[in-house]
Amino acid sequence: MGNFKGHALPGSFFLLFGLWWSVKYPLKYVCRKNKNACYFGSRAGFQRLEFIEGIVKAVFALIGMIAEQFVPDGPHLKLYNYEEKHWDHLMNWQHATMYLFYGISGLVDIVAHGTNALPVALDRMMLSLAVFIEGFLFYYHIHGRDMLDFHVHQLLLVAIFGAAFCIFLEVFFRGSIVLEMLRTSLCILQGSWLWQIGFVLYPPNGRLEWNQMDHNNMMFLTMCYCWHYAFAFLILAVNYTIVSWVVRSKIKQAQSVEMGLLKTSERDQESEDEI
Amino acid sequence: MGNFKGHALPGSFFLLFGLWWSVKYPLKYVCRKNKNACYFGSRAGFQRLEFIEGIVKAVFALIGMIAEQFVPDGPHLKLYNYEEKHWDHLMNWQHATMYLFYGISGLVDIVAHGTNALPVALDRMMLSLAVFIEGFLFYYHIHGRDMLDFHVHQLLLVAIFGAAFCIFLEVFFRGSIVLEMLRTSLCILQGSWLWQIGFVLYPPNGRLEWNQMDHNNMMFLTMCYCWHYAFAFLILAVNYTIVSWVVRSKIKQAQSVEMGLLKTSERDQESEDEI
Amino acid sequence: MGNFKGHALPGSFFLLFGLWWSVKYPLKYVCRKNKNACYFGSRAGFQRLEFIEGIVKAVFALIGMIAEQFVPDGPHLKLYNYEEKHWDHLMNWQHATMYLFYGISGLVDIVAHGTNALPVALDRMMLSLAVFIEGFLFYYHIHGRDMLDFHVHQLLLVAIFGAAFCIFLEVFFRGSIVLEMLRTSLCILQGSWLWQIGFVLYPPNGRLEWNQMDHNNMMFLTMCYCWHYAFAFLILAVNYTIVSWVVRSKIKQAQSVEMGLLKTSERDQESEDEI
Amino acid sequence: MGNFKGHALPGSFFLLFGLWWSVKYPLKYVCRKNKNACYFGSRAGFQRLEFIEGIVKAVFALIGMIAEQFVPDGPHLKLYNYEEKHWDHLMNWQHATMYLFYGISGLVDIVAHGTNALPVALDRMMLSLAVFIEGFLFYYHIHGRDMLDFHVHQLLLVAIFGAAFCIFLEVFFRGSIVLEMLRTSLCILQGSWLWQIGFVLYPPNGRLEWNQMDHNNMMFLTMCYCWHYAFAFLILAVNYTIVSWVVRSKIKQAQSVEMGLLKTSERDQESEDEI
Repeated sequence: MGNFKGHALPGSFFLLFGLWWSVKYPLKYVCRKNKNACYFGSRAGFQRLEFIEGIVKAVFALIGMIAEQFVPDGPHLKLYNYEEKHWDHLMNWQHATMYLFYGISGLVDIVAHGTNALPVALDRMMLSLAVFIEGFLFYYHIHGRDMLDFHVHQLLLVAIFGAAFCIFLEVFFRGSIVLEMLRTSLCILQGSWLWQIGFVLYPPNGRLEWNQMDHNNMMFLTMCYCWHYAFAFLILAVNYTIVSWVVRSKIKQAQSVEMGLLKTSERDQESEDEI
Repeated sequence: MGNFKGHALPGSFFLLFGLWWSVKYPLKYVCRKNKNACYFGSRAGFQRLEFIEGIVKAVFALIGMIAEQFVPDGPHLKLYNYEEKHWDHLMNWQHATMYLFYGISGLVDIVAHGTNALPVALDRMMLSLAVFIEGFLFYYHIHGRDMLDFHVHQLLLVAIFGAAFCIFLEVFFRGSIVLEMLRTSLCILQGSWLWQIGFVLYPPNGRLEWNQMDHNNMMFLTMCYCWHYAFAFLILAVNYTIVSWVVRSKIKQAQSVEMGLLKTSERDQESEDEI
Repeated sequence: MGNFKGHALPGSFFLLFGLWWSVKYPLKYVCRKNKNACYFGSRAGFQRLEFIEGIVKAVFALIGMIAEQFVPDGPHLKLYNYEEKHWDHLMNWQHATMYLFYGISGLVDIVAHGTNALPVALDRMMLSLAVFIEGFLFYYHIHGRDMLDFHVHQLLLVAIFGAAFCIFLEVFFRGSIVLEMLRTSLCILQGSWLWQIGFVLYPPNGRLEWNQMDHNNMMFLTMCYCWHYAFAFLILAVNYTIVSWVVRSKIKQAQSVEMGLLKTSERDQESEDEI
Repeated sequence: MGNFKGHALPGSFFLLFGLWWSVKYPLKYVCRKNKNACYFGSRAGFQRLEFIEGIVKAVFALIGMIAEQFVPDGPHLKLYNYEEKHWDHLMNWQHATMYLFYGISGLVDIVAHGTNALPVALDRMMLSLAVFIEGFLFYYHIHGRDMLDFHVHQLLLVAIFGAAFCIFLEVFFRGSIVLEMLRTSLCILQGSWLWQIGFVLYPPNGRLEWNQMDHNNMMFLTMCYCWHYAFAFLILAVNYTIVSWVVRSKIKQAQSVEMGLLKTSERDQESEDEI
């Protein structure tokens, strides 16, 4: 959907997932570090989260596919116009294909984490493939557009292929907090950049369009892309701090309750807490 | 062989191998998980399979090479036309070269799994090289063709180089089910895409040829490629499910026979089965 | 800052860091090898060094950002010229963005090594990203320049992306002396090449400018780049030798003091020293 | 040196090293497998071999550098022609630079295997860098040549960068026989392809030159390159077989001598030998 909403909608999906991951992975990491002290967020709990994430992903993908097909100016499942002998609404079909692979990734998540039939690492591989296919379709999608249009989508491709590569590495280095945070940052970047693309190419409220041929615009947007990324790290840092702080205070609280009941010496507990 | 059969034949080879792998690797994985309960598919059994696979690969490669040389309009081992001073049937020679490396890969499989003279990991490296050489020759093969012709072969290259990379990783992460399934999916994709190329470039039954210069055709085929890949995953999923189901029911059956003979309590056995 | 100083200043920063690393990592390696004998350079000591390095990095980045903004012909935080409707001093803003990511990397170093709140491996990932962003901005920065200008910056990109890749590998192979020395060599190369660029594009003292279109100049500079790299290894080798020699002589000295006090037999100690 | 000898000489160096490695690495592998039975080729013995290899490499590199400088039409250490204001014999200087890095790699080998001052893995990294620098210089070297000339050198680059990548992997997977054989095969390929380039571009004995613009020549040479590679594997296979056979027969011989002296039962020994 070549309009503002067509970029803002998937952008919001990616932002949502990115924000959620920026809470989930720090939580997982902090809980793993304070193993015996964490009352929420056990191993089974996180597996259930992955399961729910899979469902949400599959549902979002389904909504996306249906929306691309049945919006008023959509193809309504018609692929070829036999009267005029040309392909019909190829863009919508391409977007639907992108969603399809995210849907498959969601299904694999559901099966891999809901049953023990599938090897767990498959979830990362399918997600990596889904992101790669998104980038792959985009790559041929943007062929032959105007310079600025091409450029902003090309920048998007950096985030997409970077994320695909990062998730592929997670197949082999599963649970590495560094890769998980890299993925999260790239996901937020992708989401916020999709919004930016919407604002640049389809300025809402009848603002002036950007000059497609101005080289300075291109230079500014490259830099702007980096600021988006810095902003993604800011969000990550804020959420990481909040999560750490909440978990630590919960642990302290739980320990003081315990201590009050057991009348154990307070000093030993605190020294344990500091390690 | 620039015709329909010349694409359908190797396509069938790849499909055959892909389908076979989509049975073999899930079987191996399920058997490894139910170690003490698997009556077919021991370690030695799988090594024998690899040995047979090597023979089949070598034989197919030999057939391919002979076919490329001795088809009626083939070179019949003649490389240079001294009268007219030009190279003779370079295409057939290039295809024969591709088969040659698959043949070498087959031979390495035979020696590595039939004797213990060679390091086992060599089989993956030679297969990776064979796939890489295929892609390498294709890459220079398609230089300067029409846009659509170029594009469909370029898409094929993505599957080929992806598979070569994936198999190279298997040298270091041998037996990783994720990589094996990725390879299988890419092999099926390559096979079915070769058929698709045949249909696009050499439509059988005198149908209309595709317009080589229509940008929309290119966009459609890119998308179609993704659908082929989704289809490959569907096949993988179906075969995986069947294999899992068959192995589980065999295990159950064997266990009930055992139980009937030994009159042991049924409940303990079932709880073991569930783990 | 498109002048000699604008290249010499960051070049000096990189040279400084490269030289410092060429002392630090050999020291760390030699100390680790002579574990029980090393009196300076404990694990905690090196962590404190990383902490200080982070502060220095953050301060340098801050200085760089402020300098780019508030030099006489700088943007003074003004991004868009509303009167003339064009972006203002984009180059300075881009350089400031590069420094920004080094600043973030410095902050992450400070938090990761000063507290135990962050996973330690994050420091390498952020440094890798900072270097990557530098290369990413350069890549679009040099678009459409003269041949020689383009070429010398392209060569710089090889060192930058090489370093980014090398540091990314360090996330997974942390503490590998080989990667650390590779990084050091690439950092020195980048620093000395920035000086070289300054001399080539903005020859000081009114010397003749280089002919931008002479293909031989390009060939010479490519080769010159390799000599810079050989020179970087020479520096590494010299520093490595000095560090090894100093550590060994310190150990010997300490041992002889010990021996004088304890009157133990000298031969046993020496044989230990040789291992 | 743009003539036949200038390609045949380095080609011979690479062939020599490739052939030597095709004996050394199988020998090392077979000896490691028959650990308690191998009378030549201990760990220390192989370290001495690496040391000698380093010396040979450094000497070859020195010869190469001196030859490039002091051949009759060489630069004789003169870099810039001040009278005519142009660079002098840049090609020879570039080749000398390539040799320089192989020389550095040789020196690192000598120090890393002759003393215990350097980390051993550095030898692989420096070799990888030397090969990379060779490819890097070639890459800019061949800019703007005729089509066929460009193509044959581009094919060479595949072998060079492949080898650089393979050796870089060896830093992390040291002693992997698969990588060592891959490296050996690429080294032989590079050597034999340099000879091929000599024959194609500077046909000796006054034969006709190849048509630089014939697309078929390009296609043939691509294929020919693959045959060279198949040939490299043939050499590897033959040498591997000979080495295995010699080592095994030596072991058997040694065992029968032992048995004759000790009069132990022959059957036990043979069964051990078969494992």
